[in-house]
Amino acid sequence: MAVFNMIEEADATGKVKEVFEDIKKKRNTDYINNFWKMLANNPETLERTWTSIQQVMKKGALDEMTKELIYVAVSMTNSCEYCIKSHSIAAKSKGATTEMLSELIAVVAMANETNRLVESYQVKVDKVYE
Amino acid sequence: MAVFNMIEEADATGKVKEVFEDIKKKRNTDYINNFWKMLANNPETLERTWTSIQQVMKKGALDEMTKELIYVAVSMTNSCEYCIKSHSIAAKSKGATTEMLSELIAVVAMANETNRLVESYQVKVDKVYE
Amino acid sequence: MAVFNMIEEADATGKVKEVFEDIKKKRNTDYINNFWKMLANNPETLERTWTSIQQVMKKGALDEMTKELIYVAVSMTNSCEYCIKSHSIAAKSKGATTEMLSELIAVVAMANETNRLVESYQVKVDKVYE
Amino acid sequence: MAVFNMIEEADATGKVKEVFEDIKKKRNTDYINNFWKMLANNPETLERTWTSIQQVMKKGALDEMTKELIYVAVSMTNSCEYCIKSHSIAAKSKGATTEMLSELIAVVAMANETNRLVESYQVKVDKVYE
Amino acid sequence: MAVFNMIEEADATGKVKEVFEDIKKKRNTDYINNFWKMLANNPETLERTWTSIQQVMKKGALDEMTKELIYVAVSMTNSCEYCIKSHSIAAKSKGATTEMLSELIAVVAMANETNRLVESYQVKVDKVYE
Amino acid sequence: MAVFNMIEEADATGKVKEVFEDIKKKRNTDYINNFWKMLANNPETLERTWTSIQQVMKKGALDEMTKELIYVAVSMTNSCEYCIKSHSIAAKSKGATTEMLSELIAVVAMANETNRLVESYQVKVDKVYE
Repeated sequence: MAVFNMIEEADATGKVKEVFEDIKKKRNTDYINNFWKMLANNPETLERTWTSIQQVMKKGALDEMTKELIYVAVSMTNSCEYCIKSHSIAAKSKGATTEMLSELIAVVAMANETNRLVESYQVKVDKVYE
Repeated sequence: MAVFNMIEEADATGKVKEVFEDIKKKRNTDYINNFWKMLANNPETLERTWTSIQQVMKKGALDEMTKELIYVAVSMTNSCEYCIKSHSIAAKSKGATTEMLSELIAVVAMANETNRLVESYQVKVDKVYE
Repeated sequence: MAVFNMIEEADATGKVKEVFEDIKKKRNTDYINNFWKMLANNPETLERTWTSIQQVMKKGALDEMTKELIYVAVSMTNSCEYCIKSHSIAAKSKGATTEMLSELIAVVAMANETNRLVESYQVKVDKVYE
Repeated sequence: MAVFNMIEEADATGKVKEVFEDIKKKRNTDYINNFWKMLANNPETLERTWTSIQQVMKKGALDEMTKELIYVAVSMTNSCEYCIKSHSIAAKSKGATTEMLSELIAVVAMANETNRLVESYQVKVDKVYE
Repeated sequence: MAVFNMIEEADATGKVKEVFEDIKKKRNTDYINNFWKMLANNPETLERTWTSIQQVMKKGALDEMTKELIYVAVSMTNSCEYCIKSHSIAAKSKGATTEMLSELIAVVAMANETNRLVESYQVKVDKVYE
Repeated sequence: MAVFNMIEEADATGKVKEVFEDIKKKRNTDYINNFWKMLANNPETLERTWTSIQQVMKKGALDEMTKELIYVAVSMTNSCEYCIKSHSIAAKSKGATTEMLSELIAVVAMANETNRLVESYQVKVDKVYE
């Protein structure tokens, strides 16, 4: 009685099939993640997300590993288990070490703590920062 | 009728005064941020936070600039204006460019979007990741 | 070692029994959801929630299906799996199609992204909106 | 161009007027908070919220001060400035000291930190707790 | 000492100028919102967001007004003041009445309450929903 | 393919072993929670968190039970299942009854609802509170 089911490759047609093929080619893999198979329920969302993620996550002023670490940090703050897992693995494939991920967690946890300290004490922005 | 007011340097004594002096020395500045002046309402919290932040944010497997960027990413996800502002400035003082911060925002926003896609479609973790 | 266990219908007495009967009558069903069986641990919470939800979710300026869709949108933003599931089913029973739910997800994800863009760039409210 | 404006006492009629009178009587005051004046835009929401809050916040197994402290803790975690302010004042009126509120903040901040540690490391529930 | 400043129309060039012109044409207005002027700090983000929002918010299985209401519901749950304000106005321009927005708020608030009830009591998904 | 695995007692050395011994001694138990075994991946985080939690959660102006209840309230608002479970048990060990926990949930849920009402209606802080 699930509301949505994954669209498997064998059932992909049209735009969905094209995006699946593109993912496999660009990522040099035969495996399509569950994430993409679920998004395929809405072909427009699938295509837009795949296009956007390539643009946003490509090397720019920030390198790809740093972008993946930032992605993981957001996912940890939002408690998205799937996202933490898949993007930690992506970060490792781009050079992140377990030690880096462990320090990342310490920063994420500390930032969440001090964010609440600021809001709880209702700290006003320093005049020098305005 | 504020519940808490800042403890100004002139009124700092004991442990609070010590931490204020240490902040100024370690950061080579004469300025104490509103954040620390507010935490001073609870000297234990002030001291613990100052000690912890030095430990967590120091150069390790991740460099200091990357740690600040991660701090900003969490603060953006939590919508903590003060934290975004002060740690963006800290990131810049450690080498981050405006272009980097702009790419950081794109990653943070994208991650928040895909986190919700995952939760909304209730994507199950891929067997290959288990 | 669970802190709370469900109150099954066979064990329901007094106010809990009354609310259970009312749910079955008003919803024309023999099935009591786990949600209500858990709330029954606090009869006041059970009764207040049942009364409130009837008042809030009834047809008004907004029709019942739209209200269920909004309920789902909030639950997706809060990543409440149980709530997404049960209210998606409720939305479908009131006329929502799978296509509608799929578009709903796209809007929810997009709104979560632009919410963070606004907070990250600290966009000020336009003077024309004040 | 505000979407909603407060309903002032002079303009209150029917159910809104009744609730305003009841708030003043039960709280032994002549002052109606902005919160209630805003809720008055939807008389059903005003009445339901006023009834619910009296039921939930009344002395029970937990005393009123502890309930207000819990209210403040939630509001801090959600960064609701208005709520932190008004319920901190309510807590003080029921016996909370500034020292208590300061310790409350330390607990709230610490809990937010360890919540993220748990989610980031994806700690599984101990078998002994199942 | 702001990290980012708005790019005003007079200073827009290249891709930013193009998007600004497109917004004015498609929305039949002379006014560019602060949101777009801020996104212009990253032309790729500006263009991607403008393209995506047109795709996601266009009439489909859900009408445009319902999509705006859902947008507002997410923004309320995330406490994004700018987003609540601008999308409430957008919802009204597409036919939403003040009464509808008022009922929307009641649903959003109620959903946030029951989401927490579910998580707090750790309600398991009903077998009939699996 | 987990990113992190627990450090079991048999494999604990140096600082990790010391903290594990201290936890067992101070808590008068032979059992180390999964939480600590996971934090052991980063000995500095393990030690800092253990030291901080002892300082923050010790009896002060607030008693230990009240502090645990506040911890649970935050964890419920953040939907951290592990944290709700472990700290509810801790609260009970310090005197909290099931009835207290049940009232706690009612307050947490209500506060989450009214927090959203305040943000949705964009209620301004009363002049008398400024």
